[in-house]
Amino acid sequence: MFKLMILLTKRQTMSDDDFARYLLDEHAFLAKKMPGLRKYVVNIVQRPPNKEPDYHGVSELWFDDRESMKKAFSSPQGGLAQRDTDNFASKAMTLFIDEHEIN
Amino acid sequence: MFKLMILLTKRQTMSDDDFARYLLDEHAFLAKKMPGLRKYVVNIVQRPPNKEPDYHGVSELWFDDRESMKKAFSSPQGGLAQRDTDNFASKAMTLFIDEHEIN
Repeated sequence: MFKLMILLTKRQTMSDDDFARYLLDEHAFLAKKMPGLRKYVVNIVQRPPNKEPDYHGVSELWFDDRESMKKAFSSPQGGLAQRDTDNFASKAMTLFIDEHEIN
Repeated sequence: MFKLMILLTKRQTMSDDDFARYLLDEHAFLAKKMPGLRKYVVNIVQRPPNKEPDYHGVSELWFDDRESMKKAFSSPQGGLAQRDTDNFASKAMTLFIDEHEIN
């Protein structure tokens, strides 16, 4: 499996709640339609006391392999999801991941 | 479930491989012994071309609730794991997470 993590910083004009609602309801609804997406988790960061966090959300997306990931992002659904990111995020940092579950 | 994400930046003196090996073999061996830890995933960031990444690893830890997480980190095993972090990471940013699996 090939995993992506996307570290998201919200638009300054949005409240934490509006950001979380948009990401979970609107954006996830678009992004989950990407072909080849095997698993999709949205992590909402809880605001620390007295501090603006660097990141307000972290998306995790799993594909069979790197090729499937590339296809998904160049599909029409992938294009829609990427363009929608500007609606709630001022920054999005993508990390390619080797995932290890520790037992 | 209560989830933590810890964004890790490697020590500058370590190679990517040494960092990954230490985190997966040495550190995870200590950290997985924390009482109340329900699930533990170590994500190794793949180096992007021509760029030093901000983060080289992301640990994900799940507990039953916030209270169990606090107990785990104040246990002897939690103390050991936290002190060990200096052996491979120059920075560790902890995020408290509300996790949502999208279906």
